[in-house]
Amino acid sequence: MTTRREHDLLGDKDVPADAYWGVHTARARENFPITGTTIAAYPHLVEALASVKEAAARANAELGLLSPDIADAITAACREIREGALHGEFVVDVIQGGAGTSTNMNANEVIANRALELLGHAKGDYHVVHPNEHVNLSQSTNDAYPTAVNVATIIAVRQLSEAMIVLEKAFAAKAVEFHDVLKMGRTQLQDAVPMTLGQEFGTYAVMLGEDQQRLGEAVALLHEINLGATAIGTGLNAAPGYAEAACRHLREITGLPVVTAADLVEATQDCGAFVHLSGVLKRIAVKLSKSCNDLRLLSSGPRAGLNEINLPPVQAGSSIMPGKINPVIPEVVNQVAFEVIGNDVTVTMAAEAGQLQLNAFEPIILHSLSESITHLGAACRTLATKCVSGITANVDVMRAYVENSIGLVTALNPSIGYAAATEIAKEALETGRGVAELVVEKGLIPAEELARLLRPETLARAT
Amino acid sequence: MTTRREHDLLGDKDVPADAYWGVHTARARENFPITGTTIAAYPHLVEALASVKEAAARANAELGLLSPDIADAITAACREIREGALHGEFVVDVIQGGAGTSTNMNANEVIANRALELLGHAKGDYHVVHPNEHVNLSQSTNDAYPTAVNVATIIAVRQLSEAMIVLEKAFAAKAVEFHDVLKMGRTQLQDAVPMTLGQEFGTYAVMLGEDQQRLGEAVALLHEINLGATAIGTGLNAAPGYAEAACRHLREITGLPVVTAADLVEATQDCGAFVHLSGVLKRIAVKLSKSCNDLRLLSSGPRAGLNEINLPPVQAGSSIMPGKINPVIPEVVNQVAFEVIGNDVTVTMAAEAGQLQLNAFEPIILHSLSESITHLGAACRTLATKCVSGITANVDVMRAYVENSIGLVTALNPSIGYAAATEIAKEALETGRGVAELVVEKGLIPAEELARLLRPETLARAT
Amino acid sequence: MTTRREHDLLGDKDVPADAYWGVHTARARENFPITGTTIAAYPHLVEALASVKEAAARANAELGLLSPDIADAITAACREIREGALHGEFVVDVIQGGAGTSTNMNANEVIANRALELLGHAKGDYHVVHPNEHVNLSQSTNDAYPTAVNVATIIAVRQLSEAMIVLEKAFAAKAVEFHDVLKMGRTQLQDAVPMTLGQEFGTYAVMLGEDQQRLGEAVALLHEINLGATAIGTGLNAAPGYAEAACRHLREITGLPVVTAADLVEATQDCGAFVHLSGVLKRIAVKLSKSCNDLRLLSSGPRAGLNEINLPPVQAGSSIMPGKINPVIPEVVNQVAFEVIGNDVTVTMAAEAGQLQLNAFEPIILHSLSESITHLGAACRTLATKCVSGITANVDVMRAYVENSIGLVTALNPSIGYAAATEIAKEALETGRGVAELVVEKGLIPAEELARLLRPETLARAT
Amino acid sequence: MTTRREHDLLGDKDVPADAYWGVHTARARENFPITGTTIAAYPHLVEALASVKEAAARANAELGLLSPDIADAITAACREIREGALHGEFVVDVIQGGAGTSTNMNANEVIANRALELLGHAKGDYHVVHPNEHVNLSQSTNDAYPTAVNVATIIAVRQLSEAMIVLEKAFAAKAVEFHDVLKMGRTQLQDAVPMTLGQEFGTYAVMLGEDQQRLGEAVALLHEINLGATAIGTGLNAAPGYAEAACRHLREITGLPVVTAADLVEATQDCGAFVHLSGVLKRIAVKLSKSCNDLRLLSSGPRAGLNEINLPPVQAGSSIMPGKINPVIPEVVNQVAFEVIGNDVTVTMAAEAGQLQLNAFEPIILHSLSESITHLGAACRTLATKCVSGITANVDVMRAYVENSIGLVTALNPSIGYAAATEIAKEALETGRGVAELVVEKGLIPAEELARLLRPETLARAT
Repeated sequence: MTTRREHDLLGDKDVPADAYWGVHTARARENFPITGTTIAAYPHLVEALASVKEAAARANAELGLLSPDIADAITAACREIREGALHGEFVVDVIQGGAGTSTNMNANEVIANRALELLGHAKGDYHVVHPNEHVNLSQSTNDAYPTAVNVATIIAVRQLSEAMIVLEKAFAAKAVEFHDVLKMGRTQLQDAVPMTLGQEFGTYAVMLGEDQQRLGEAVALLHEINLGATAIGTGLNAAPGYAEAACRHLREITGLPVVTAADLVEATQDCGAFVHLSGVLKRIAVKLSKSCNDLRLLSSGPRAGLNEINLPPVQAGSSIMPGKINPVIPEVVNQVAFEVIGNDVTVTMAAEAGQLQLNAFEPIILHSLSESITHLGAACRTLATKCVSGITANVDVMRAYVENSIGLVTALNPSIGYAAATEIAKEALETGRGVAELVVEKGLIPAEELARLLRPETLARAT
Repeated sequence: MTTRREHDLLGDKDVPADAYWGVHTARARENFPITGTTIAAYPHLVEALASVKEAAARANAELGLLSPDIADAITAACREIREGALHGEFVVDVIQGGAGTSTNMNANEVIANRALELLGHAKGDYHVVHPNEHVNLSQSTNDAYPTAVNVATIIAVRQLSEAMIVLEKAFAAKAVEFHDVLKMGRTQLQDAVPMTLGQEFGTYAVMLGEDQQRLGEAVALLHEINLGATAIGTGLNAAPGYAEAACRHLREITGLPVVTAADLVEATQDCGAFVHLSGVLKRIAVKLSKSCNDLRLLSSGPRAGLNEINLPPVQAGSSIMPGKINPVIPEVVNQVAFEVIGNDVTVTMAAEAGQLQLNAFEPIILHSLSESITHLGAACRTLATKCVSGITANVDVMRAYVENSIGLVTALNPSIGYAAATEIAKEALETGRGVAELVVEKGLIPAEELARLLRPETLARAT
Repeated sequence: MTTRREHDLLGDKDVPADAYWGVHTARARENFPITGTTIAAYPHLVEALASVKEAAARANAELGLLSPDIADAITAACREIREGALHGEFVVDVIQGGAGTSTNMNANEVIANRALELLGHAKGDYHVVHPNEHVNLSQSTNDAYPTAVNVATIIAVRQLSEAMIVLEKAFAAKAVEFHDVLKMGRTQLQDAVPMTLGQEFGTYAVMLGEDQQRLGEAVALLHEINLGATAIGTGLNAAPGYAEAACRHLREITGLPVVTAADLVEATQDCGAFVHLSGVLKRIAVKLSKSCNDLRLLSSGPRAGLNEINLPPVQAGSSIMPGKINPVIPEVVNQVAFEVIGNDVTVTMAAEAGQLQLNAFEPIILHSLSESITHLGAACRTLATKCVSGITANVDVMRAYVENSIGLVTALNPSIGYAAATEIAKEALETGRGVAELVVEKGLIPAEELARLLRPETLARAT
Repeated sequence: MTTRREHDLLGDKDVPADAYWGVHTARARENFPITGTTIAAYPHLVEALASVKEAAARANAELGLLSPDIADAITAACREIREGALHGEFVVDVIQGGAGTSTNMNANEVIANRALELLGHAKGDYHVVHPNEHVNLSQSTNDAYPTAVNVATIIAVRQLSEAMIVLEKAFAAKAVEFHDVLKMGRTQLQDAVPMTLGQEFGTYAVMLGEDQQRLGEAVALLHEINLGATAIGTGLNAAPGYAEAACRHLREITGLPVVTAADLVEATQDCGAFVHLSGVLKRIAVKLSKSCNDLRLLSSGPRAGLNEINLPPVQAGSSIMPGKINPVIPEVVNQVAFEVIGNDVTVTMAAEAGQLQLNAFEPIILHSLSESITHLGAACRTLATKCVSGITANVDVMRAYVENSIGLVTALNPSIGYAAATEIAKEALETGRGVAELVVEKGLIPAEELARLLRPETLARAT
């Protein structure tokens, strides 16, 4: 392997001659052999880093701090990355020490070397375009990196929202389809009072709608960036006007309405928006998991379960039990939910561990959030397309439950009172007889009046 | 002990003759011997239950479902409870099975018996005022209880917000007091670049301000109530107009802008607002804990630590080491934060475990949230009054750190470049010499120019 | 209120004349107004503190460091506390800063003042018996407090183990009772293959047995104590032979086989045994919760659920639905489990936050562990006595599920192969017909051979 | 792409002609597009599956259930996989529904097709060697899969233990190297009493040794396997003697002392051993994180921090601050610890969610445990080799802290009493003077006696 020699604070080091990354990246690769997964696995982050670097270069050029040709070369390199090129050059591990410095330097080095090429120079000719002095100009890892994380996360969340809408619509369509399907409602797994299957599925759609509102509020917080803060928020080495210009260019480049935080010292150390977002992702996970628990319960059987609905079969369920079909899609969603809930604890601990002017643990926060967001998105889409949209109802099973139910007696409270109704319910339970026949037999309510009161459609108040 | 005999689904049971609670409460006391703490420990909840019951009674009377004299007696009993009476009669355990039914029935029984007394009847004369048929009229535990939990939580959060404001002001006052105190900023516990102690304390105030905004948004979600949903959200046994009337009366009674949820089936099973609130409480805990970690670090010493600030001594620190003073107030706040973070996991699990039309585990959610809210409030007040407001600065220590620092070299990047600055820093570190003398000695920057560049006040950009 | 004046590092302070606690406790009460619950709520801890103080006094006397009469008075005071006296004097908050110093000083002061009384002196005459110089002699909070926590926890865990045995026996008795009750086993909530209800209940008993083994291993770690370590484990101010003597006396006093840790510096800062114990408590919680989920599922109904077993009714289930009985006992156990799982996160965070030679957050660790242990114990006893021991089986319901099941086809794999069995299962599912008739109809297996193969008792391999 | 047509419960499906996997795997790939990471990422699991399948084939052959040539072909295929071949054919997603059925069927299909090849047949000729009827013979996913997970985890934990030993030795070597280095001990970040740096590093070694013991105990539980349990633990379709034979063969193949669980119904549904192991991994994470927090604190500076030790520089610390070196290796270990702690919550939730005869969520348990184990191992090795082994001590800095310390006064308690010592400490703190001079000045202890008492070496009790 041919190499080129680079130099940093620790001395000389050879890097592969054709690598766009340089000495800082080379050391980081050796220092963090943790997961084997590189930040190339986060294309949103790689592209967001390029957006930030381009915004900085433009702002620096505008302020006369960077010569136009260098700024143009950096800009061109960044655009290539944003269009998908060179992602394979982002080779540092996703779990890394150093508050993101290795990721930021990886970006600085790749962009510098690509800019050098575009200017007709060899890689490593850093006197022409230098990773720190030109690409990183007016920046610190501590503002460039979190700004890129914010931008990447906003994009990722947008895709999650789209997946949630797909799922919401799938549930809502079933709510319409099952509008007239009567069934017993259950509280505490005990028969309660009648409702419709449409109401049940409508609930899942409503929950997802609310979750999207919360997600939108959480992601709004990420539009506040600290670009221009440099090392600790005091803006040291950033020229007057730089923060404003860089933010303006970043808005143009990304199309996102990002704004500069009011207090840059606070913004540089604060992980509140990440904790908040993680909390909302956890909330989504909780609700998705609950919904999937319900789907698995309602489709239990086929003979020794509730058997109210059928999930579409998507694969044979067992290597030993012929004909068995399992609710594998809800099950995989449950597992994603458990992962997201665990990730929230990881994010919480990482955020709590920040000290003084910086949180050094943003890489694990980014990693956990990215995982949660993308897996939740995949889970929502999978649940919608592989499961919910194909659910069918066992209408007769459900109606039989209603007609056989003791819970109907609740509707008689206004007529005969809670105490008398309790006695009827008790006798029905002990004898196995029906509520209606007991009420009539005891002469509590005339038969025709009873029939009117106990019309399940009325009870369910289906509208 | 004299007793009176009551009757329920399970048969007869004697209760103490002077108890306002009855047979349902008596069974619940026996069934849940878990914590020994009764719901009387949540005065906000007890009062909120009374508010809900009064609202229901008024609505029922308005709709002609309850005779005016009974409604008046119930209302009078509820008002006594809201004014602090009879709390000792709320005797069921805070951790209980049954989705809050025992708490709801405890309230129904106490109110019924007090109403009976006010009407001149003996306790237990339920044919006159019945816990279920009159006090609980048009309600289920599944709407009355969560509505009361919402109201109680709104009040509790209001008190937390007040405590947070006290703490925010204490930090903000210190930010002003320490406006001119120069110090080294630190990232990753390593010397970074200069800042002011005022900036550092200002950060804590800003964080608390942001947290209050998030808390306000979270608590806003609780204003959506499901009163009128009855058992599962279909409103069975609630008359047309009841939900609207009960909500209107509850608004009047509590002064809170509560509204009826749009989808009562969803609202009856959904714990999203609690999960969300818990997530925000966790966020507050994370930031408080981080701030306290900083306070403990900055005040470490007095001789072998950073020794930048002094926390006011509030007690002797050691049973063996004379003169030792420990940062006990931040330490207790850290511990509350850890508790809140643990409680968030409890709330998460309880919310995820909801099934079908109801979450049976709201009692532990209420318990965990109440604990988190009240302990956080106590922690904020204690931190403000016992610690932050008495903090003093060791100005000379901090200035010496700045003047001795290698981090000043960062400010020379624009003049001599990152690479040359790196060599200077390296030599300073290895030789123990100062950055400034090395720069001048090497003729990189004239002395007077250097003095201007390195003015810490400039570097800190303190405004 | 009459008072006496005491003095400490911070100056003079008046305390109530009749209080056994003194100035240190008085300041701590003011400093930690967090929960309102005092350490008197942990009788095991109060008694363990007395045991440790008595052991120290005896060891000090033995080494000639404490005069016999003072040692005797301290010992007498400690014994009174161990027998239940003076617990009300332990008034510091359970959540407190200072690594337990306030709790330790509360004990030192109460014991000193009671010893003074026994010697005929007035409270506060500390020149005769001094909280620090006599009661705390040769000790630091950092060894006396964790030693007491260990002792208290060992006792508490012993009570938990007893409760777990009660529950294990209740499950085991049902396993015997239900030995011959055939039912369908279910995997992933889908019908699988036959088993017996006895096997199902036997599982819960076996789980509890395994959990007790793990609990025993975890608590064994707590028998390693650091008494004699003093402030940081170097044993400063503890005479040679003191650690050995104090440990020996503590063994005698408590009857527990405690031993001195091999590395006292490590033992003084390490919270590993608490983290481990908390992990085991969490494991118990997970299994208990799973078992309760099963009980609630199997007893779902009565008409629209699985309805395989009946939990004994312990209270009316609903304030609106007459005759409804809910699984309130399993539900309360679930909630305790969620609390324990949350507490484990709290313990984890507190343990991780230890710094250098000490973990300052042991009070919240003690609090969380105590809560988990006692609530789990209460939950196990309640579940055993209020629920499991009264469970009855709906034998006919279960047998009908078996006979109607498609899962029986699994047993035909060896005869007709997985592929053919799959076709049978599919047809049974689609047509609603039985597996057996289809097999016979298709001539795959002669009827009498089939009857032999499908004997559920054989399939269940019930022994 | 050429394909071959396969058939299952759901009908026909084409798979790539050259794929060793078949129709079940094909459906699973489509059903679980969650992470993009396939189980090939777990080589231990892939190899363990092959070991289990080989053990089953041998046992089946021994019992006359499988013809010798088929058993030999299966065995040969399994051996190839165990030697590293065909791992790329394990293509189902690591997060999947179905309790591991897809992973098990992926293994069955790959082994069947490779066996077919070895026997001279085309892939897909399942009438000769069938994935279910031959490779999976006498097995269910529900015993084969967890057995493989156990075997894989045992191997993975063995590698973690080796990494922990490397780290333990690195700390122990430093304990020896720093045996004579005096320093101040600190409790609650406040100066306490003297110790040696060797004692401090020895602590980290001792902690790791204890953790290895706990890890060994936890992994011992995994040696209990449920092979032979088939679907739910009743052993349906497994011949008498099969469980014993399969276990015996698995012992031979793996060299691990695995044994058949006593209660197979319990073992098939129980995740207790995984929860326990996860708890122990969390404990390790907590301690590692605490140790890294200490290393970062002790190396803080270089000018405005404690500056007691130097971590070896492994990369430039900042993109903007020249010469800055950050503790990136401890930081990455902290982050792994946070991840492991989060994963423990995921495992906990997944274990709690098991229902009736099976836990459907073992895939996420496996995923979380694998991640925790391998990342912890990488973290330990990295910490040892990149950080601990290169740590140097700033001996003079530490000695100056000791000599300047007020904490020395603790050693005078036995001579002048706690109260007098408190006054000395107070005066030293207020005046900035030294403890020794004050004591002599006040004539409390003669100078030469004082010098003897305050010899730091004595105080530290360094041995």
